[in-house]
Amino acid sequence: MTQARLMDGTALARRIVEETAKRAADITERTGTAPCLATVLVGEDPASVTYVRMKRNRCRTAGITSRHVPLPADTTTEQLVGTLRELSADPGVHGILLQHPMGPHIDERAAFEAIAPEKDVDGVTFASFATMSFGLPGFVSCTPGGIMRLLDEYGVDPAGRRAVVVGRSAILGKPAGMLLLARDATVTYCHSRTTDLSAAVREADIVVAAVGRPRLIRGQDVKPGAVVIDAGYSPGNVGDVDFDSAVKRASLITPVPGGVGPMTIATLLEQTVDAAARQLGV
Amino acid sequence: MTQARLMDGTALARRIVEETAKRAADITERTGTAPCLATVLVGEDPASVTYVRMKRNRCRTAGITSRHVPLPADTTTEQLVGTLRELSADPGVHGILLQHPMGPHIDERAAFEAIAPEKDVDGVTFASFATMSFGLPGFVSCTPGGIMRLLDEYGVDPAGRRAVVVGRSAILGKPAGMLLLARDATVTYCHSRTTDLSAAVREADIVVAAVGRPRLIRGQDVKPGAVVIDAGYSPGNVGDVDFDSAVKRASLITPVPGGVGPMTIATLLEQTVDAAARQLGV
Repeated sequence: MTQARLMDGTALARRIVEETAKRAADITERTGTAPCLATVLVGEDPASVTYVRMKRNRCRTAGITSRHVPLPADTTTEQLVGTLRELSADPGVHGILLQHPMGPHIDERAAFEAIAPEKDVDGVTFASFATMSFGLPGFVSCTPGGIMRLLDEYGVDPAGRRAVVVGRSAILGKPAGMLLLARDATVTYCHSRTTDLSAAVREADIVVAAVGRPRLIRGQDVKPGAVVIDAGYSPGNVGDVDFDSAVKRASLITPVPGGVGPMTIATLLEQTVDAAARQLGV
Repeated sequence: MTQARLMDGTALARRIVEETAKRAADITERTGTAPCLATVLVGEDPASVTYVRMKRNRCRTAGITSRHVPLPADTTTEQLVGTLRELSADPGVHGILLQHPMGPHIDERAAFEAIAPEKDVDGVTFASFATMSFGLPGFVSCTPGGIMRLLDEYGVDPAGRRAVVVGRSAILGKPAGMLLLARDATVTYCHSRTTDLSAAVREADIVVAAVGRPRLIRGQDVKPGAVVIDAGYSPGNVGDVDFDSAVKRASLITPVPGGVGPMTIATLLEQTVDAAARQLGV
């Protein structure tokens, strides 16, 4: 029994961050201004605090300034929208990251839409979703964007291949499918209401699992030779794919951790520098 | 051999237009203002002139005022955007229809984005695409919206069923798939780069053909008992589905003409009245 080759997101992300750091340094030297990412955090959810800290640390290593905007847990949607509009209008900020999910009292969509599309480096606005969907220039959602980079890195051309995306969230499943479609894959969206998930997944040359249900996709569901992208994460470093059985059927597979995960922040940093370059005219 | 039942778009559209006319009359009586659709036409392409005339005639029969804005063929994108922004800001206009496709010198996307989302009754803006995709309130693209109404009318619940959309245009295939996904179908997008279209279509409980290639889908590609929606149109009243063979396999099928076609204008009128009701506060 052969084993799939691992898609090493850690190594690819490192290289992207190194290249991004060089570009950031170049922008800083030429303009006197470092690329700046505003990180907006509502409340003190421990996981969110950790994510934001990781992102800010990674910014630092890449020569990107981060401006942290912590807001109290009882911030209203109106106040949050006001803050995001100010940051959108602030020429010293090139990219905006609004950490989410937020509390149920926040209208998340209203908040996202207060981010100017040209600063939407996390790819959460309607405009970003549409440009991804229509194959137009714009920012991508970071995890789906990272998935496409991984496929490119490992020479997987989606054109003409069957891709099955399991999951349909606004920032992961849906845009991942749209990016694959823009690259000419034949794309199927599966989800919790899909009646025969195994049958659908077995059609796939490329599987993207993005639901956050531990080991939902088993090896027997994987078409021999398929490319398996596990974008799921559950506590204990468990993905949406049963790695041990899937690795025996796939040709390429992402490990968890070290597959899709590192690509998300790398894409965020890269897009922040893209945004800064455009806004600073370099 | 049994034959599929026909999905009569003409009858359903007529009923929707009648209901819309009642609502338009009610709005006019209560506010003193009739719902108003601005129709913007660049140049004098005969087909476009005909389409706009049809839409305006239909508005008239439904008690909707139409304000026609004909622009010369050499109108620039900038001028068109200016006109659309004025109409977006004009409180006397409740909905805006920009007839397309336009000449290649026009940046169609820039023009669409100049339409205020609350007046985008043709469902062409990024915002409308995103709200369709995320199952949020907003206007739908008229043809996909009409398709969903036809499915509802004939008791077809997409939840848990395999839907295959052939075509991925911004105003037809892509939003049709997103609307089906929002209604819990397992959705596959096929297109010109799909390697085995017949195999993919044979998986479908619901087929939406939306490419404009005469008789692309043949009866042998239709799963017995499937619902077949033909949103294609080619000269000579030819759809994307080979009707004569498909009618013998499907359980429900739209004729061409008289299936999807009439639903498009009906949806446009209905959404214009929705827009007017919201803007006039009734």
